[in-house]
Amino acid sequence: MSKSDTVSTQSETIKDDKKLYVIKIGGNVIDNSENLYKFLKDFTALPGYKILVHGGGKVATQLSETLGIEPKLVDGRRITDIETLRVVTMVYGGLINKNIVAQLQRNGNNAIGLTGADGDFIRTKKRPVKTIDYGFVGDIDENSINPQSISNLMEARFTPVFCAITHDGDGQLLNTNADTIASAIAVALAKLYETTLIYCFEKKGVLKDINDEHSLIKDIDPLKYEDLKTQQIIHSGMLPKLDNAFTAISSGVKAVIIGHSDDLGKLKHNQPFGTRLSKSL
Amino acid sequence: MSKSDTVSTQSETIKDDKKLYVIKIGGNVIDNSENLYKFLKDFTALPGYKILVHGGGKVATQLSETLGIEPKLVDGRRITDIETLRVVTMVYGGLINKNIVAQLQRNGNNAIGLTGADGDFIRTKKRPVKTIDYGFVGDIDENSINPQSISNLMEARFTPVFCAITHDGDGQLLNTNADTIASAIAVALAKLYETTLIYCFEKKGVLKDINDEHSLIKDIDPLKYEDLKTQQIIHSGMLPKLDNAFTAISSGVKAVIIGHSDDLGKLKHNQPFGTRLSKSL
Repeated sequence: MSKSDTVSTQSETIKDDKKLYVIKIGGNVIDNSENLYKFLKDFTALPGYKILVHGGGKVATQLSETLGIEPKLVDGRRITDIETLRVVTMVYGGLINKNIVAQLQRNGNNAIGLTGADGDFIRTKKRPVKTIDYGFVGDIDENSINPQSISNLMEARFTPVFCAITHDGDGQLLNTNADTIASAIAVALAKLYETTLIYCFEKKGVLKDINDEHSLIKDIDPLKYEDLKTQQIIHSGMLPKLDNAFTAISSGVKAVIIGHSDDLGKLKHNQPFGTRLSKSL
Repeated sequence: MSKSDTVSTQSETIKDDKKLYVIKIGGNVIDNSENLYKFLKDFTALPGYKILVHGGGKVATQLSETLGIEPKLVDGRRITDIETLRVVTMVYGGLINKNIVAQLQRNGNNAIGLTGADGDFIRTKKRPVKTIDYGFVGDIDENSINPQSISNLMEARFTPVFCAITHDGDGQLLNTNADTIASAIAVALAKLYETTLIYCFEKKGVLKDINDEHSLIKDIDPLKYEDLKTQQIIHSGMLPKLDNAFTAISSGVKAVIIGHSDDLGKLKHNQPFGTRLSKSL
């Protein structure tokens, strides 16, 4: 079944007055409780529809170590064996997700903590074994996200908070990259809402010089992006994030912002923050 | 704020055509994956609105042992210190809850896994320290459950699956007895739905002789209950469950069934199972 089939053709008219922010926070924000609480207050204060996606953080690694589970890496990529899946289900889906929800509720945000199994919101396919067996990793495709169902939850006045766990629809939970989840949700929901995707991390945004926080590039459009790549100004670690962002934009997402979690509050006052990627400057 | 205030006075008219089952499964069912999968299939097959509440099981105890957390008991009651709260949040809220949800989704049931923090559905008060400090335990009172909000979720076509974690509304997660959660949800939702509360465990129901599964007492009303207590036929372990059940019935719940998780499937065929408690025989 293609889940996107359920999206009605009225979406263009619905879209105009419905703004949605899909915001992803990384492990570095989660690991610092002071940063996290400030971020969650700013998240609560944002007007309109909001979806939070969070990554892992150190806790899963620490728990794995305590339990004597050896981290397995192949070509620098983490392998999710069954023991590691249990740990991330406990830590991402339980400990981190539910504590974020409790904090958001304290702020007056009616959050509801989710994996992709809940509500069948994100159904992925276990990555096929080619040369490497990545284990219980779920890959997102164009039918993975159920936008109408997520919309139903938001219309019932709940704020979805997703962790990086999905399912295959056949009873198996799977580990899925949080950046990819955020991007796929934004693309799918862009059919129903005017959607901005925001990646919050521990840097001011895309920097010309990675060691200089003052070298922020404020705006990038596809032309400028090509230029920055040609000049090798954008460092390699940023490339997948930016490629991902421009794919989202070409798939209907209005803009992608990459910035520091501490600066999210600026959005409420219509002040720009971080690096804004869009179709045209 | 009293959350029950939001329930409209139209509820009596809404109630007639809306049947709800609130079903609790205990740790023994969760620990046996074969029993659990059968139960979840039968749960999926039940018509009408459904809410699942689940307890813990051995996994939390095992994880605590592995992590070197000593179980703390006072007068036979478990103390929830901060380390234990972390473990139950991971195991109940993450591992068990999300695996149940994935299995229900596999069966075609649109489950959504929850703590009481999610959607502010169950707000409790940390148990006051008198002679014993129970730690991070949340007590339910008459304003703890938000029936309209749970109803909104069900009307948006989701099946709530609650674990035994709640919150205080001020950012703190708390451990709350799953039997009490099930009963409180049933009482609160009885204002909006014709509600039956079902406790599924590893016995056929209330037995005259605890060692004889054929000695099932099929029906109990308040008069018969007094009689059984006077004759000391009901053993002491059952008393809190039954007291709890009759309190639920006097608060608007239509009936309470106490029975074996394997027998839930009979309900679909309108066959009685377990012990049925109601206002009158």
